[in-house]
Amino acid sequence: MFEKYDVIVVGAGHAGCEAAHAAATMGSKVLLATMNLQTIAQMSCNPAMGGVAKGQIVREIDALGGMSGIISDKTMIQFRMLNRSKGPAMWSPRCQSDRFRFSEEWRWALEANTNIDFWQEMVTGLIIEDKRAIGVITSLGLKIHADTVVLTNGTFLNGLIHIGEKNFGGGRAGERASVGLTADLEKLGFKSGRMKTGTPPRVDKRSIDFSKMEEQLGDENPEKFSYTNTPSLKQQRSCWISWTNQEVHDELKKGFDKSPMFNGKIRGLGPRYCPSVEDKINRFADKDRHQIFLEPEGWDTVEMYVNGFSTSLPEDIQYNAIRKIPGFENVKMFRPGYAIEYDYFPPTQLKLTLETKLVENLYFAGQINGTTGYEEAASQGLMAGINAHLKSKKKDPFILKRNEAYIGVLIDDLINKGTDEPYRMFTSRAEFRTLLRQDNADIRLTPKAHSIGLASVERLERVKVKIEQSEEIYSSLQNMKVDPSEANGFLESNSSSSLRERTTLYNLLKRPELNIDQLREVSPDLDSLLVSTDNEVIQQAEIKVKYERYIEKELQMAEKMNKLENLSINPDFDYEKLTSLSIEARHKLKDIKPATLGQASRISGVSPADISVLMVYLGR
Amino acid sequence: MFEKYDVIVVGAGHAGCEAAHAAATMGSKVLLATMNLQTIAQMSCNPAMGGVAKGQIVREIDALGGMSGIISDKTMIQFRMLNRSKGPAMWSPRCQSDRFRFSEEWRWALEANTNIDFWQEMVTGLIIEDKRAIGVITSLGLKIHADTVVLTNGTFLNGLIHIGEKNFGGGRAGERASVGLTADLEKLGFKSGRMKTGTPPRVDKRSIDFSKMEEQLGDENPEKFSYTNTPSLKQQRSCWISWTNQEVHDELKKGFDKSPMFNGKIRGLGPRYCPSVEDKINRFADKDRHQIFLEPEGWDTVEMYVNGFSTSLPEDIQYNAIRKIPGFENVKMFRPGYAIEYDYFPPTQLKLTLETKLVENLYFAGQINGTTGYEEAASQGLMAGINAHLKSKKKDPFILKRNEAYIGVLIDDLINKGTDEPYRMFTSRAEFRTLLRQDNADIRLTPKAHSIGLASVERLERVKVKIEQSEEIYSSLQNMKVDPSEANGFLESNSSSSLRERTTLYNLLKRPELNIDQLREVSPDLDSLLVSTDNEVIQQAEIKVKYERYIEKELQMAEKMNKLENLSINPDFDYEKLTSLSIEARHKLKDIKPATLGQASRISGVSPADISVLMVYLGR
Ligand SMILES: Cc1cc2nc3c(=O)[nH]c(=O)nc-3n(C[C@H](O)[C@H](O)[C@H](O)COP(=O)(O)OP(=O)(O)OC[C@H]3O[C@@H](n4cnc5c(N)ncnc54)[C@H](O)[C@@H]3O)c2cc1C
Ligand SMILES: Cc1cc2nc3c(=O)[nH]c(=O)nc-3n(C[C@H](O)[C@H](O)[C@H](O)COP(=O)(O)OP(=O)(O)OC[C@H]3O[C@@H](n4cnc5c(N)ncnc54)[C@H](O)[C@@H]3O)c2cc1C
Repeated sequence: MFEKYDVIVVGAGHAGCEAAHAAATMGSKVLLATMNLQTIAQMSCNPAMGGVAKGQIVREIDALGGMSGIISDKTMIQFRMLNRSKGPAMWSPRCQSDRFRFSEEWRWALEANTNIDFWQEMVTGLIIEDKRAIGVITSLGLKIHADTVVLTNGTFLNGLIHIGEKNFGGGRAGERASVGLTADLEKLGFKSGRMKTGTPPRVDKRSIDFSKMEEQLGDENPEKFSYTNTPSLKQQRSCWISWTNQEVHDELKKGFDKSPMFNGKIRGLGPRYCPSVEDKINRFADKDRHQIFLEPEGWDTVEMYVNGFSTSLPEDIQYNAIRKIPGFENVKMFRPGYAIEYDYFPPTQLKLTLETKLVENLYFAGQINGTTGYEEAASQGLMAGINAHLKSKKKDPFILKRNEAYIGVLIDDLINKGTDEPYRMFTSRAEFRTLLRQDNADIRLTPKAHSIGLASVERLERVKVKIEQSEEIYSSLQNMKVDPSEANGFLESNSSSSLRERTTLYNLLKRPELNIDQLREVSPDLDSLLVSTDNEVIQQAEIKVKYERYIEKELQMAEKMNKLENLSINPDFDYEKLTSLSIEARHKLKDIKPATLGQASRISGVSPADISVLMVYLGR
Repeated sequence: MFEKYDVIVVGAGHAGCEAAHAAATMGSKVLLATMNLQTIAQMSCNPAMGGVAKGQIVREIDALGGMSGIISDKTMIQFRMLNRSKGPAMWSPRCQSDRFRFSEEWRWALEANTNIDFWQEMVTGLIIEDKRAIGVITSLGLKIHADTVVLTNGTFLNGLIHIGEKNFGGGRAGERASVGLTADLEKLGFKSGRMKTGTPPRVDKRSIDFSKMEEQLGDENPEKFSYTNTPSLKQQRSCWISWTNQEVHDELKKGFDKSPMFNGKIRGLGPRYCPSVEDKINRFADKDRHQIFLEPEGWDTVEMYVNGFSTSLPEDIQYNAIRKIPGFENVKMFRPGYAIEYDYFPPTQLKLTLETKLVENLYFAGQINGTTGYEEAASQGLMAGINAHLKSKKKDPFILKRNEAYIGVLIDDLINKGTDEPYRMFTSRAEFRTLLRQDNADIRLTPKAHSIGLASVERLERVKVKIEQSEEIYSSLQNMKVDPSEANGFLESNSSSSLRERTTLYNLLKRPELNIDQLREVSPDLDSLLVSTDNEVIQQAEIKVKYERYIEKELQMAEKMNKLENLSINPDFDYEKLTSLSIEARHKLKDIKPATLGQASRISGVSPADISVLMVYLGR
């Protein structure tokens, strides 16, 4: 019934969609097999993309030629650049999305790709030959063959939904769990674990008293995720802020004895940084209030998402507590919050390409690897899709380093350190975060993505122009000078110390109190240079001037690290004979089989002393 | 957690949506509880509304103030008036719909009604007090109270999906079955049965060779379903026609031994008039081909629906067979066809209001009553919603007679005759089909619906204008005359016999070969009367002239029937003592408890002789 595919992608969540799209765009014949074609790229939880560190990932996906940025731009109902008051390394784009539109746009994007075929069914097992994956088996018993298989099962594997003391099987509210696959993988030798995540109740906008809440508008000049010419937002929807209080907490506490989190019914570990509200009041007992964001689910629907109120307490407890939040006195719920437990596969079982170590040509991406979040999932999907394609075409793998992308950090962390709790990205996980900014993801990544045939020529051209123009501005700033007589009035009025001698604009711009826009006032030359230049380009030049020193320092650090990174270790290296390694290091190194000394240095349990031993042995 | 509602509607399919909307519009506080809020008004099978007899029902729903017509107009991608070459009693509007848009528009319509609250969960039982329904119980154990409860569970009750020899629980592909409710109802004394229905595979447009198929365009001047000012179609999508052949049939036959229909695995009876393709080639062995319509699933998607190829044969058989249909040689399927078995409740357990006889304040509507089709479901939902509202407000019930609406025929058939196989509407089921036309549903029903507070004043005004204007045209036609000299040239050129004396336009219009548009040529007076008149109004007058005799005859028949209908029978009437009734009649009458002699006359097994006995006894 089926041709043999280059790549089969199992699951059409955020990971699966990016995987299918990337592989197909690069030229693979792809089958996207998913349990329900009506829930393609469904947002399981909050209707939003991006945020701190996550927004950077979406920009990186876009720079690489993925779709999450484009789809987000087309379907957003509000945009905000978070952390704009901090340095540019912290700037993080975030949008509210129309949940229905998001899913629909993804579907159209995939359908528009003639290399993608679709199949609606549950995949229950793999076809394996000589420890290589050569296809999948479906619930109907169909066998579908392919060079490579990418699994992106999300929260569906033996999914178990909890609300208070009740629980039932499901992959998401109202959807079935995926059964069979975990057992099949375990039989192949994979280790699996159990994690949990949660979601808040949804409520009816018509029952909310917004006068008691604070309105949160979108940015006045909303930006976008994609570096391409997606449309920009003309109109936006607001979110609303309220706070829990002692009364809310007291109501919630009444249900603690029935909480599946506290009474041991849930075994899987939840995301520490995205805790349920019961977790928050338990762990931060001294805090007398927590922030609640009420977010619309789309342009037109009255359904709203209660961000900050994720819970698996019994539904009556949820209801009694939420009503005590200002603005929610007469709230009507659409459905209660719940927690879901699911199987994941510790990602130390993967290579940097996201291929599994145990079974060749088999890739894992997304929540199945113990991560949480659409952006983390999408980026892994993209990388797995790329590498599955390259493998099937017998080409070199595509790997991003820690100093090149948050995506590099994410995957490197996963496969070296593993994770016991749902892993999400933070800026603090990236040691080179001044390099890995949201504004330069295209400069960092588009040329690479173009070279492997994913990012289009048009994208590459855009980046080239951006680089050239921003460099032109940068050198002009170094060349353009102003006299004290020209500048001092301006400087004074901006509380900046006055000049004694002719000075370059470059030097002025380094002053924290001044920005490039203001400098246009003192320099007609600069003004005429910038007047027809894209804002993004100007920003690029400005950041380069202002943060040059930090950037330089990180570049040097990165170079050092890359040296270690270039020292490769034979995968068959016998760590046992290196008795001077600590026992733990030997054990971990044998397990992870790092490809380079750099990678070895980041394995938890491997000390600098162990690295020295290895360096000596490897003859440097 | 919940207020007490006037009406709880269980299930948000076509029946549930109309029920909730009607009751809420009339003023009831309504809770719509459904398993998945993302699948509101999902079209389970073909992406189309209307068709022969079904189109008339949609027009009736619209005339009554229901939403199916409006939603269809807003989301259609093609419109055709079927049977236009036949008499106007047979004209049947039909549209292709955008499946996603249809569901979304319904959701917005419901959300816009402030009397409707939403709850996403499975209802598993009823709360009963003194043989009266007073609420529902959900899978979480929540108790929600109401004056009345409407059950519209569709194909979900213990749903079991079959493909070849495999089967698994589900309410629709990719969705869960509803469990618990059937058992709960049986405990209350309800009888349940098992039915089945089927759906064809979905295929990928990009894999079809349209050059081998015949294009079916929409009407040149597409009409609409709604009598309100919904937008009319500017652009349309085509369907495509192909045919099965001997090769297709031979491939299908290879799977007959594995067919759940033929090997006894499916016990439920399927719709005789909407048979699976294996059924067709089995039952009509002499026919060497069957028509296949390939229908787009929406404006933009590449998914297509293979109308006429419903099947539950093994998926590989489906695939091998479908590829032999011209145009399908390289077809790619999105998913196989399947059959689904589900519980229904024989509708003889209902009153004409759709309230159950066993449990007061409990209503059943839609597929749960053994019907099939969106239109049949929607119309029952509308009637159940109206009556649940009226009951909760202690007002008189709302019942449509057989001579007033197809909806009247539908419900009267169901409760009196019951049904062993999925019941669908046909024009032949209506003895007064010349009265029950698609063009006059508003005239028949809007005044009634307005009087109970459902249809708006604007709707009523529109109808009044339509009636007045068409009567003006009608009487003008009787008054306007033409001379032979004026008319004979025109008549000759239209192959109509010439006049000898001055004749009314009315008489000319009665000639089958002439229509009102043509008559404008011979009569400038008529032309100036019609020039600014709505087409619908002109049509109304024309039909009245041309079909006057048939209409008259049916009106007389209806009057006769209504006489019987006015003879009411006490529900406690003791049929046992009437020993001159046949045993079967006595049994059936006791069971059905007809409200009138008319109703008694339509119960299968009750003969005219039995009716005479009853008449005598009732003293007429
Ligand atoms: C209740 C809930 C709460 C969450 N809360 C948060 C949160 O607070 N913060 C946060 O960052 N993230 C949260 N998430 C996680 C976020 O939704 C996921 O990280 C993200 O959706 C993962 O994407 P994915 O592509 O890996 O999987 P998913 O989006 O889960 O998609 C999996 C896809 O695979 C399909 N599938 C699964 N098994 C099979 C099979 N055997 N055969 C065929 N198809 C299959 C499914 O139908 C689905 O399309 C939550 C998720 C859930 C369910
Ligand atoms: C596979 C298939 C093939 C079909 N083929 C045809 C065909 O060829 N021709 C034809 O005319 N018709 C066909 N139909 C029938 C058509 O889809 C139905 O007649 C129509 O959808 C019935 O509408 P409904 O409102 O009664 O139920 P449905 O549309 O089935 O909706 C039922 C709703 O109730 C909800 N629900 C169910 N149980 C519960 C519960 N316990 N608690 C809360 N919510 C619940 C469901 O989630 C759903 O929203 C087919 C249906 C299916 C599934």
